[in-house]
Amino acid sequence: MAGGIGSRFWPASRSSHPKQLLDLTGSGQTMIAATVARLTPLIPPQQVFVITSQKIRDAVSQELPDVPGANIIAEPAGRNTAPCIGLAALIIRRIHPEAVMAVMPSDHLVKDIPSFQRAMTVGIRAAAGGNLVTFGIRPSSPETGFGYIETGDEAAPGVRTAVRFVEKPSLELAQTYLRSGNFVWNSGMFFFKATAILNEIQQRLPELFQGLSIIDQAIGTPEEAAVIAAVFPTLPSVSIDYGIMEKADGIHCVPVDFGWSDLGSFEAAWDRSEKNAQGNALAKEHIAIDSHNCFVRAPAGKIVALVGLDDVVVVDTGDALLICRKDRAQDVRHVVSALASSGRDDLL
Amino acid sequence: MAGGIGSRFWPASRSSHPKQLLDLTGSGQTMIAATVARLTPLIPPQQVFVITSQKIRDAVSQELPDVPGANIIAEPAGRNTAPCIGLAALIIRRIHPEAVMAVMPSDHLVKDIPSFQRAMTVGIRAAAGGNLVTFGIRPSSPETGFGYIETGDEAAPGVRTAVRFVEKPSLELAQTYLRSGNFVWNSGMFFFKATAILNEIQQRLPELFQGLSIIDQAIGTPEEAAVIAAVFPTLPSVSIDYGIMEKADGIHCVPVDFGWSDLGSFEAAWDRSEKNAQGNALAKEHIAIDSHNCFVRAPAGKIVALVGLDDVVVVDTGDALLICRKDRAQDVRHVVSALASSGRDDLL
Repeated sequence: MAGGIGSRFWPASRSSHPKQLLDLTGSGQTMIAATVARLTPLIPPQQVFVITSQKIRDAVSQELPDVPGANIIAEPAGRNTAPCIGLAALIIRRIHPEAVMAVMPSDHLVKDIPSFQRAMTVGIRAAAGGNLVTFGIRPSSPETGFGYIETGDEAAPGVRTAVRFVEKPSLELAQTYLRSGNFVWNSGMFFFKATAILNEIQQRLPELFQGLSIIDQAIGTPEEAAVIAAVFPTLPSVSIDYGIMEKADGIHCVPVDFGWSDLGSFEAAWDRSEKNAQGNALAKEHIAIDSHNCFVRAPAGKIVALVGLDDVVVVDTGDALLICRKDRAQDVRHVVSALASSGRDDLL
Repeated sequence: MAGGIGSRFWPASRSSHPKQLLDLTGSGQTMIAATVARLTPLIPPQQVFVITSQKIRDAVSQELPDVPGANIIAEPAGRNTAPCIGLAALIIRRIHPEAVMAVMPSDHLVKDIPSFQRAMTVGIRAAAGGNLVTFGIRPSSPETGFGYIETGDEAAPGVRTAVRFVEKPSLELAQTYLRSGNFVWNSGMFFFKATAILNEIQQRLPELFQGLSIIDQAIGTPEEAAVIAAVFPTLPSVSIDYGIMEKADGIHCVPVDFGWSDLGSFEAAWDRSEKNAQGNALAKEHIAIDSHNCFVRAPAGKIVALVGLDDVVVVDTGDALLICRKDRAQDVRHVVSALASSGRDDLL
């Protein structure tokens, strides 16, 4: 899934060059390239499908030279995750009716790749039995920015039943969840047979299923592109979590601990970046005087000087400059809203 | 006097484009143009002489189209204010042996121009009698960044004797000075006959006087430029305050209150700039969310977004970016030192 726009990473992230096409932590790899790279030991590139937007389809394709161009599918309009996953399921079911899908956001970070790959095999095996399966991240702190999953009994080695999905909790509730030991973060990474998720969509999102069925009949025909272009934008915009996962029965959860981050803000990018002794993750050319725990990005060759600054995010892209208190990094999306409502689409 | 480099205004101020050539407060006029403009109702442009550096001589000349090119004199090397004033005095004495000089830094601000001009006439009249005269700024706060002058009895209407010059005081001492009512800030603006200051230099800075005498013999001859180039860099580097004013007798002081600022830092520039309701002096294109009392400069057309920032200075010049806590604005000069010692003369 590579359709996001990453508005909390403005001005680095733009609609034509969003978060998944950036290397926000200085890893040397864009997030989408890293996402595919950690899958390919288990899933050959020919079996990797990317659903993205028309605007960045070519850029995604260039980032993933080993993934066949035909596997990179542009949504005519963003309709949230349920239509995206439904479309992918149609395509994958045609290739193999028993196929298991691993659904991965293209803009998450994983630190411990071997552990991730071991968890993948557990997830895929669990999904092969017909259940919807999710990765649940063992919480390291009482985060209030994530949904949680309460896990139940062991369903198979390394797999638990999911008792319930809960929306982003209050801090108090999150602390209770953390203490209980039974709650994990909803990672947004899923495993299921293509047929299994289509069955769930048929039951719980019949309007979506109806639209997908029209598209399904056109797949492989000369009308495929025209039908997708006509029908997809009319599909209900709903997330797979809200539309299916929070309601479906028999969901299984693989509790995992592989150093995951959804990299939700510049604060998280700072957290995951290499830092110097002063806690600064800085642009290449810099002078920092009495400054600590800052995150700085600037165009190559530009010198950035900090004086007496703590916990500040600075992102200079040549045409735009963001300076943000690090603990307010979530609010960068409000800058994007303000630009949108003032008609500055050139900066989005 | 226009030889300064304004290192506390980096990266806006550069050796090739220093503070006096900037409009730091958004007034619409460079500081040097404003300095000459407030003098010209009293002193015609033909009688304005500018001592500056070779590097910015042409730029200064362009800024002051009404001042004859021959009046804009480049020092071969910066030697502080005493040699600068001595050289000007030689030139002015040749034009008229009884001439009174008004010595003005080119990078100070004056808010109340009519009041400044009234004070000028008082200063010029006081200097015509042969005394060294200085503008003393009535203090509005216990500043520790300025030297002070203790004033004594009235010497003429609007003129007092200067009892003593004191160096930058401690806060406690500055508070005592403020309460006493007899102390004023040393503005660095002086009035004296060219012959009077040359006499003082002869008495108190004989080495400087000797060098100036060699230059004096060459003025108006074909060797003038060569002699200045050879001799000026060998003159002792000393300030007029330390070398003369703090030691000379019979100094008079004109206490003034015309909204003066030496604009010593970006904090002062913020203080003197137009600000919005949130106290921000911002770049033209901006989005400010929960941000207050910031000073932002950026190239035309660049958008600057602030999120959750208070009391920060942001100066973007395209090739360099400064972000500085406003109350640390004095320390911007340390950035310049760091650049100099790392050989980045291209950024100075």
